[in-house]
Amino acid sequence: MSERTGRVICDITISADGYSAGLDQTEERPFGEDGGDGSGGRLHAWMFETPDENRAEIDQLAAARAFIMGRNMFGPVRGAWDRRWNGWWGDDPPFHAPVFVLTHHAREPQPMDGGTTFHFVTDGIESALARARAAAGDGDVAVHGGASTVNQYLAAGLIDELRLHIAPLTLGAGTRVFEGVPPLRLEQVTSRSASLVTHVTYRVLS
Amino acid sequence: MSERTGRVICDITISADGYSAGLDQTEERPFGEDGGDGSGGRLHAWMFETPDENRAEIDQLAAARAFIMGRNMFGPVRGAWDRRWNGWWGDDPPFHAPVFVLTHHAREPQPMDGGTTFHFVTDGIESALARARAAAGDGDVAVHGGASTVNQYLAAGLIDELRLHIAPLTLGAGTRVFEGVPPLRLEQVTSRSASLVTHVTYRVLS
Repeated sequence: MSERTGRVICDITISADGYSAGLDQTEERPFGEDGGDGSGGRLHAWMFETPDENRAEIDQLAAARAFIMGRNMFGPVRGAWDRRWNGWWGDDPPFHAPVFVLTHHAREPQPMDGGTTFHFVTDGIESALARARAAAGDGDVAVHGGASTVNQYLAAGLIDELRLHIAPLTLGAGTRVFEGVPPLRLEQVTSRSASLVTHVTYRVLS
Repeated sequence: MSERTGRVICDITISADGYSAGLDQTEERPFGEDGGDGSGGRLHAWMFETPDENRAEIDQLAAARAFIMGRNMFGPVRGAWDRRWNGWWGDDPPFHAPVFVLTHHAREPQPMDGGTTFHFVTDGIESALARARAAAGDGDVAVHGGASTVNQYLAAGLIDELRLHIAPLTLGAGTRVFEGVPPLRLEQVTSRSASLVTHVTYRVLS
Protein backbone atom coordinates (compact mmCIF):
# COMPACT_ATOMS: atom_id res chain seq x y z
CA MET A 1 0.00 0.00 0.00
CA SER A 2 1.55 3.29 -1.01
CA GLU A 3 1.58 6.34 1.23
CA ARG A 4 -0.43 9.34 0.04
CA THR A 5 1.89 12.23 -0.71
CA GLY A 6 -0.66 14.92 -1.50
CA ARG A 7 -1.66 17.35 1.22
CA VAL A 8 -4.84 19.26 1.95
CA ILE A 9 -3.97 22.93 1.79
CA CYS A 10 -5.97 26.06 2.24
CA ASP A 11 -5.14 29.51 0.90
CA ILE A 12 -7.37 32.31 2.11
CA THR A 13 -7.07 36.08 1.93
CA ILE A 14 -8.25 37.80 5.09
CA SER A 15 -8.26 41.24 6.64
CA ALA A 16 -6.00 41.94 9.63
CA ASP A 17 -9.02 41.17 11.81
CA GLY A 18 -9.58 37.81 10.15
CA TYR A 19 -12.51 38.40 7.80
CA SER A 20 -12.54 36.90 4.32
CA ALA A 21 -15.64 38.86 3.33
CA GLY A 22 -17.75 41.60 4.85
CA LEU A 23 -21.45 41.66 5.61
CA ASP A 24 -24.22 41.89 2.99
CA GLN A 25 -22.79 39.84 0.15
CA THR A 26 -24.76 40.09 -3.10
CA GLU A 27 -24.15 39.22 -6.75
CA GLU A 28 -22.95 42.77 -7.38
CA ARG A 29 -20.90 42.79 -4.19
CA PRO A 30 -19.61 39.26 -3.70
CA PHE A 31 -17.36 40.39 -0.85
CA GLY A 32 -20.03 42.55 0.79
CA GLU A 33 -18.89 45.47 2.94
CA ASP A 34 -15.22 45.13 2.08
CA GLY A 35 -14.29 48.77 2.56
CA GLY A 36 -14.51 49.34 -1.18
CA ASP A 37 -16.95 48.42 -3.93
CA GLY A 38 -17.71 44.95 -2.61
CA SER A 39 -15.60 43.28 -5.31
CA GLY A 40 -13.04 42.10 -2.78
CA GLY A 41 -10.60 44.37 -4.59
CA ARG A 42 -9.08 45.83 -1.45
CA LEU A 43 -8.62 42.43 0.16
CA HIS A 44 -7.14 40.99 -3.02
CA ALA A 45 -5.16 44.02 -4.18
CA TRP A 46 -1.98 42.02 -3.50
CA MET A 47 -2.93 39.72 -6.41
CA PHE A 48 -4.22 42.25 -8.87
CA GLU A 49 -2.23 45.42 -8.21
CA THR A 50 1.14 43.96 -7.24
CA PRO A 51 1.29 40.51 -8.88
CA ASP A 52 5.03 40.71 -9.54
CA GLU A 53 5.71 41.07 -5.83
CA ASN A 54 3.63 37.99 -5.11
CA ARG A 55 4.33 35.70 -8.03
CA ALA A 56 5.23 32.65 -5.95
CA GLU A 57 2.07 32.87 -3.85
CA ILE A 58 -0.14 33.44 -6.89
CA ASP A 59 1.37 30.49 -8.76
CA GLN A 60 0.88 28.36 -5.66
CA LEU A 61 -2.86 29.13 -5.63
CA ALA A 62 -3.37 27.23 -8.86
CA ALA A 63 -0.97 24.37 -8.15
CA ALA A 64 -3.44 21.99 -6.53
CA ARG A 65 -4.84 19.10 -8.55
CA ALA A 66 -8.36 19.34 -7.15
CA PHE A 67 -10.30 22.11 -5.41
CA ILE A 68 -13.12 22.36 -2.90
CA MET A 69 -15.22 25.45 -2.33
CA GLY A 70 -18.39 26.49 -0.60
CA ARG A 71 -21.44 27.34 -2.57
CA ASN A 72 -21.26 31.00 -1.59
CA MET A 73 -17.80 31.21 -3.06
CA PHE A 74 -19.07 29.55 -6.24
CA GLY A 75 -21.84 32.06 -6.71
CA PRO A 76 -24.75 34.10 -5.42
CA VAL A 77 -27.54 31.62 -6.25
CA ARG A 78 -29.23 30.38 -3.05
CA GLY A 79 -31.66 27.48 -2.70
CA ALA A 80 -32.48 25.54 -5.87
CA TRP A 81 -30.36 25.99 -9.03
CA ASP A 82 -33.13 28.01 -10.65
CA ARG A 83 -30.95 29.99 -12.99
CA ARG A 84 -27.81 29.49 -15.02
CA TRP A 85 -24.68 30.12 -12.97
CA ASN A 86 -21.24 28.70 -13.73
CA GLY A 87 -19.09 30.61 -11.25
CA TRP A 88 -17.50 34.05 -11.15
CA TRP A 89 -14.57 33.12 -13.40
CA GLY A 90 -15.92 33.14 -16.97
CA ASP A 91 -15.73 30.27 -19.49
CA ASP A 92 -12.14 29.32 -18.66
CA PRO A 93 -11.79 29.33 -14.88
CA PRO A 94 -8.27 29.41 -13.42
CA PHE A 95 -8.53 25.97 -11.76
CA HIS A 96 -7.86 23.67 -14.75
CA ALA A 97 -8.86 20.77 -12.52
CA PRO A 98 -11.98 19.35 -10.86
CA VAL A 99 -13.69 21.71 -8.42
CA PHE A 100 -16.02 20.21 -5.82
CA VAL A 101 -18.73 22.67 -4.76
CA LEU A 102 -20.47 22.03 -1.43
CA THR A 103 -24.24 22.50 -1.74
CA HIS A 104 -27.51 21.11 -0.44
CA HIS A 105 -28.96 21.10 -3.97
CA ALA A 106 -27.98 18.39 -6.44
CA ARG A 107 -26.85 19.41 -9.92
CA GLU A 108 -25.14 17.71 -12.85
CA PRO A 109 -21.40 18.28 -13.26
CA GLN A 110 -20.59 21.39 -15.28
CA PRO A 111 -17.58 21.09 -17.57
CA MET A 112 -15.87 24.35 -18.50
CA ASP A 113 -13.05 25.29 -20.85
CA GLY A 114 -9.45 24.64 -19.87
CA GLY A 115 -9.97 21.47 -17.87
CA THR A 116 -12.11 22.83 -15.04
CA THR A 117 -15.22 20.83 -14.17
CA PHE A 118 -17.53 21.90 -11.38
CA HIS A 119 -18.93 18.96 -9.42
CA PHE A 120 -21.73 19.53 -6.93
CA VAL A 121 -21.47 17.57 -3.68
CA THR A 122 -24.54 17.22 -1.49
CA ASP A 123 -23.35 14.70 1.09
CA GLY A 124 -20.95 16.76 3.14
CA ILE A 125 -17.38 17.91 3.53
CA GLU A 126 -15.82 14.48 4.05
CA SER A 127 -17.40 13.14 0.90
CA ALA A 128 -16.17 16.18 -1.04
CA LEU A 129 -12.67 15.62 0.30
CA ALA A 130 -12.69 11.93 -0.56
CA ARG A 131 -13.72 12.76 -4.13
CA ALA A 132 -11.15 15.56 -4.37
CA ARG A 133 -8.39 13.28 -3.07
CA ALA A 134 -9.29 10.61 -5.58
CA ALA A 135 -9.18 13.21 -8.36
CA ALA A 136 -5.90 14.73 -7.18
CA GLY A 137 -3.98 11.45 -7.05
CA ASP A 138 -0.69 12.28 -5.35
CA GLY A 139 -1.20 16.01 -5.91
CA ASP A 140 -2.52 18.50 -3.38
CA VAL A 141 -6.17 19.24 -2.69
CA ALA A 142 -6.95 22.93 -2.10
CA VAL A 143 -9.83 24.02 0.12
CA HIS A 144 -10.52 27.37 -1.43
CA GLY A 145 -13.02 29.11 0.82
CA GLY A 146 -14.97 30.96 1.85
CA ALA A 147 -14.22 31.14 5.52
CA SER A 148 -17.21 29.09 6.60
CA THR A 149 -16.06 26.19 4.41
CA VAL A 150 -12.49 26.55 5.66
CA ASN A 151 -13.75 26.59 9.24
CA GLN A 152 -15.68 23.36 8.76
CA TYR A 153 -12.56 21.63 7.43
CA LEU A 154 -10.38 23.08 10.22
CA ALA A 155 -12.85 21.98 12.88
CA ALA A 156 -12.85 18.48 11.41
CA GLY A 157 -9.04 18.34 11.52
CA LEU A 158 -8.80 17.89 7.76
CA ILE A 159 -6.44 20.73 6.77
CA ASP A 160 -2.69 20.01 6.67
CA GLU A 161 -1.41 23.45 5.72
CA LEU A 162 -3.04 26.85 6.09
CA ARG A 163 -1.76 29.83 4.12
CA LEU A 164 -3.16 33.12 5.30
CA HIS A 165 -2.76 36.16 3.07
CA ILE A 166 -3.39 39.05 5.43
CA ALA A 167 -4.41 42.33 3.79
CA PRO A 168 -3.63 45.66 5.50
CA LEU A 169 -7.13 46.70 6.48
CA THR A 170 -9.81 45.64 8.91
CA LEU A 171 -13.47 44.97 8.10
CA GLY A 172 -14.97 44.86 11.59
CA ALA A 173 -17.66 42.34 10.66
CA GLY A 174 -18.40 39.56 8.19
CA THR A 175 -17.31 35.98 7.73
CA ARG A 176 -14.26 35.26 9.87
CA VAL A 177 -11.73 32.48 9.55
CA PHE A 178 -11.31 30.35 12.72
CA GLU A 179 -14.72 31.47 14.06
CA GLY A 180 -16.28 28.60 15.97
CA VAL A 181 -13.24 26.39 15.40
CA PRO A 182 -11.87 24.72 18.56
CA PRO A 183 -8.36 25.85 19.55
CA LEU A 184 -5.63 24.72 17.17
CA ARG A 185 -1.92 24.20 17.56
CA LEU A 186 -0.07 25.51 14.54
CA GLU A 187 3.51 25.32 13.40
CA GLN A 188 5.03 28.41 11.87
CA VAL A 189 6.37 27.45 8.45
CA THR A 190 7.13 30.76 6.74
CA SER A 191 5.99 34.31 6.52
CA ARG A 192 6.93 37.32 4.48
CA SER A 193 5.38 40.63 3.60
CA ALA A 194 5.00 42.54 0.37
CA SER A 195 3.61 46.03 0.03
CA LEU A 196 -0.06 44.99 0.22
CA VAL A 197 -0.01 41.72 2.16
CA THR A 198 1.59 39.53 4.78
CA HIS A 199 1.78 35.88 3.77
CA VAL A 200 1.84 33.41 6.67
CA THR A 201 2.01 29.64 6.25
CA TYR A 202 1.13 27.31 9.11
CA ARG A 203 1.18 23.57 9.41
CA VAL A 204 -1.88 22.49 11.38
CA LEU A 205 -0.75 20.18 14.19
CA SER A 206 -4.07 19.45 15.87
CA MET B 1 5.77 75.87 18.22
CA SER B 2 7.75 72.71 17.72
CA GLU B 3 6.34 69.62 16.04
CA ARG B 4 5.91 66.59 18.26
CA THR B 5 8.15 63.78 17.08
CA GLY B 6 7.02 61.00 19.38
CA ARG B 7 4.48 58.48 18.15
CA VAL B 8 1.80 56.44 19.85
CA ILE B 9 2.66 52.81 19.28
CA CYS B 10 1.06 49.59 20.34
CA ASP B 11 2.71 46.19 20.63
CA ILE B 12 0.41 43.30 21.32
CA THR B 13 0.88 39.54 21.17
CA ILE B 14 -2.12 37.72 19.76
CA SER B 15 -3.12 34.27 18.62
CA ALA B 16 -3.62 33.61 14.90
CA ASP B 17 -7.32 34.23 15.51
CA GLY B 18 -6.66 37.58 17.13
CA TYR B 19 -7.03 36.92 20.86
CA SER B 20 -4.63 38.48 23.36
CA ALA B 21 -6.02 36.42 26.22
CA GLY B 22 -8.49 33.59 26.59
CA LEU B 23 -11.63 33.37 28.68
CA ASP B 24 -11.70 33.09 32.48
CA GLN B 25 -8.75 35.21 33.51
CA THR B 26 -7.81 34.94 37.20
CA GLU B 27 -4.83 35.88 39.33
CA GLU B 28 -3.42 32.40 38.87
CA ARG B 29 -4.24 32.39 35.17
CA PRO B 30 -3.80 35.97 33.97
CA PHE B 31 -4.21 34.88 30.34
CA GLY B 32 -7.14 32.59 31.06
CA GLU B 33 -7.77 29.71 28.68
CA ASP B 34 -4.60 30.20 26.69
CA GLY B 35 -4.12 26.59 25.64
CA GLY B 36 -1.60 26.07 28.42
CA ASP B 37 -1.42 26.92 32.09
CA GLY B 38 -3.02 30.36 31.77
CA SER B 39 0.31 32.16 32.17
CA GLY B 40 0.27 33.41 28.61
CA GLY B 41 3.34 31.23 28.12
CA ARG B 42 2.25 29.78 24.82
CA LEU B 43 1.30 33.18 23.39
CA HIS B 44 4.54 34.74 24.60
CA ALA B 45 6.87 31.78 23.99
CA TRP B 46 8.56 33.89 21.29
CA MET B 47 9.87 36.20 24.03
CA PHE B 48 10.80 33.66 26.65
CA GLU B 49 11.83 30.57 24.71
CA THR B 50 13.47 32.13 21.66
CA PRO B 51 14.60 35.61 22.77
CA ASP B 52 17.70 35.57 20.58
CA GLU B 53 15.57 35.17 17.47
CA ASN B 54 13.47 38.14 18.49
CA ARG B 55 15.95 40.51 20.08
CA ALA B 56 14.99 43.57 18.02
CA GLU B 57 11.29 43.20 18.78
CA ILE B 58 11.92 42.57 22.49
CA ASP B 59 14.18 45.61 22.78
CA GLN B 60 11.56 47.67 20.98
CA LEU B 61 8.95 46.75 23.61
CA ALA B 62 10.80 48.67 26.28
CA ALA B 63 11.89 51.62 24.12
CA ALA B 64 8.91 53.87 24.76
CA ARG B 65 9.27 56.73 27.23
CA ALA B 66 5.80 56.34 28.74
CA PHE B 67 3.32 53.47 28.84
CA ILE B 68 -0.44 53.08 29.08
CA MET B 69 -2.21 49.91 30.12
CA GLY B 70 -5.63 48.74 31.14
CA ARG B 71 -6.33 47.78 34.68
CA ASN B 72 -6.78 44.11 33.81
CA MET B 73 -3.29 44.06 32.37
CA PHE B 74 -1.99 45.70 35.53
CA GLY B 75 -3.52 43.10 37.78
CA PRO B 76 -6.40 40.93 38.92
CA VAL B 77 -7.87 43.33 41.50
CA ARG B 78 -11.36 44.47 40.47
CA GLY B 79 -13.42 47.27 42.02
CA ALA B 80 -11.80 49.24 44.86
CA TRP B 81 -8.05 48.87 45.57
CA ASP B 82 -8.77 46.81 48.66
CA ARG B 83 -5.51 44.92 48.74
CA ARG B 84 -1.89 45.57 47.90
CA TRP B 85 -1.12 45.02 44.23
CA ASN B 86 1.79 46.57 42.33
CA GLY B 87 1.60 44.72 39.04
CA TRP B 88 2.76 41.34 37.78
CA TRP B 89 6.38 42.41 37.30
CA GLY B 90 7.98 42.41 40.78
CA ASP B 91 9.80 45.30 42.45
CA ASP B 92 11.71 46.39 39.34
CA PRO B 93 9.26 46.32 36.43
CA PRO B 94 10.69 46.37 32.89
CA PHE B 95 9.21 49.76 31.98
CA HIS B 96 11.74 52.15 33.64
CA ALA B 97 9.33 54.97 32.86
CA PRO B 98 5.91 56.23 33.92
CA VAL B 99 3.05 53.78 33.36
CA PHE B 100 -0.49 55.14 33.23
CA VAL B 101 -3.05 52.56 34.35
CA LEU B 102 -6.67 53.11 33.27
CA THR B 103 -9.08 52.52 36.15
CA HIS B 104 -12.35 53.76 37.61
CA HIS B 105 -10.85 53.77 41.10
CA ALA B 106 -8.49 56.53 42.21
CA ARG B 107 -5.20 55.60 43.82
CA GLU B 108 -1.99 57.41 44.69
CA PRO B 109 0.96 56.97 42.31
CA GLN B 110 3.06 53.92 43.10
CA PRO B 111 6.81 54.37 42.58
CA MET B 112 8.78 51.19 41.95
CA ASP B 113 12.49 50.42 41.59
CA GLY B 114 14.30 51.19 38.36
CA GLY B 115 12.39 54.31 37.38
CA THR B 116 8.92 52.82 36.87
CA THR B 117 6.03 54.68 38.51
CA PHE B 118 2.47 53.46 38.16
CA HIS B 119 -0.01 56.34 37.84
CA PHE B 120 -3.72 55.63 38.07
CA VAL B 121 -5.92 57.56 35.65
CA THR B 122 -9.64 57.76 36.29
CA ASP B 123 -10.74 60.29 33.68
CA GLY B 124 -10.44 58.29 30.50
CA ILE B 125 -8.18 57.28 27.66
CA GLU B 126 -7.58 60.77 26.25
CA SER B 127 -6.49 62.08 29.61
CA ALA B 128 -4.14 59.13 30.06
CA LEU B 129 -2.67 59.78 26.63
CA ALA B 130 -2.18 63.50 27.32
CA ARG B 131 -0.34 62.67 30.52
CA ALA B 132 1.73 59.98 28.84
CA ARG B 133 2.67 62.33 26.00
CA ALA B 134 3.73 65.00 28.46
CA ALA B 135 5.86 62.44 30.29
CA ALA B 136 7.39 61.03 27.09
CA GLY B 137 8.54 64.37 25.71
CA ASP B 138 9.64 63.67 22.16
CA GLY B 139 9.81 59.92 22.85
CA ASP B 140 7.18 57.36 21.96
CA VAL B 141 4.17 56.47 24.05
CA ALA B 142 3.33 52.75 24.13
CA VAL B 143 -0.22 51.50 24.59
CA HIS B 144 0.52 48.14 26.11
CA GLY B 145 -2.80 46.31 26.26
CA GLY B 146 -4.84 44.35 26.92
CA ALA B 147 -6.89 44.14 23.79
CA SER B 148 -9.83 46.09 25.19
CA THR B 149 -7.56 49.04 25.95
CA VAL B 150 -5.93 48.80 22.54
CA ASN B 151 -9.36 48.65 20.92
CA GLN B 152 -10.49 51.82 22.68
CA TYR B 153 -7.42 53.68 21.42
CA LEU B 154 -7.81 52.27 17.91
CA ALA B 155 -11.48 53.23 17.80
CA ALA B 156 -10.57 56.76 18.89
CA GLY B 157 -7.98 57.04 16.10
CA LEU B 158 -5.15 57.55 18.59
CA ILE B 159 -2.68 54.82 17.55
CA ASP B 160 -0.01 55.68 14.97
CA GLU B 161 1.69 52.31 14.68
CA LEU B 162 0.41 48.85 15.52
CA ARG B 163 2.83 45.96 15.97
CA LEU B 164 1.13 42.58 16.07
CA HIS B 165 3.11 39.60 17.30
CA ILE B 166 1.10 36.64 16.05
CA ALA B 167 1.67 33.35 17.86
CA PRO B 168 1.11 30.04 16.06
CA LEU B 169 -2.00 28.85 17.84
CA THR B 170 -5.65 29.77 18.05
CA LEU B 171 -7.67 30.32 21.23
CA GLY B 172 -11.21 30.34 19.83
CA ALA B 173 -12.53 32.76 22.44
CA GLY B 174 -11.41 35.54 24.75
CA THR B 175 -10.43 39.18 24.35
CA ARG B 176 -9.84 39.98 20.70
CA VAL B 177 -7.93 42.85 19.18
CA PHE B 178 -9.99 44.93 16.67
CA GLU B 179 -13.29 43.67 18.15
CA GLY B 180 -15.85 46.46 17.95
CA VAL B 181 -13.38 48.78 16.22
CA PRO B 182 -14.74 50.44 13.07
CA PRO B 183 -12.94 49.44 9.85
CA LEU B 184 -9.36 50.72 9.61
CA ARG B 185 -7.07 51.37 6.71
CA LEU B 186 -3.57 50.18 7.49
CA GLU B 187 -0.23 50.52 5.77
CA GLN B 188 2.02 47.51 5.70
CA VAL B 189 5.37 48.58 7.18
CA THR B 190 7.25 45.33 7.78
CA SER B 191 6.74 41.74 8.69
CA ARG B 192 8.96 38.81 9.40
CA SER B 193 8.63 35.44 11.07
CA ALA B 194 10.71 33.56 13.58
CA SER B 195 10.11 30.03 14.75
CA LEU B 196 7.36 30.91 17.24
CA VAL B 197 5.89 34.16 15.91
CA THR B 198 5.07 36.37 12.95
CA HIS B 199 5.80 40.04 13.59
CA VAL B 200 3.67 42.47 11.55
CA THR B 201 3.95 46.25 11.79
CA TYR B 202 1.20 48.50 10.44
CA ARG B 203 0.89 52.25 10.25
CA VAL B 204 -2.71 53.15 11.06
CA LEU B 205 -3.98 55.47 8.31
CA SER B 206 -7.52 56.08 9.51
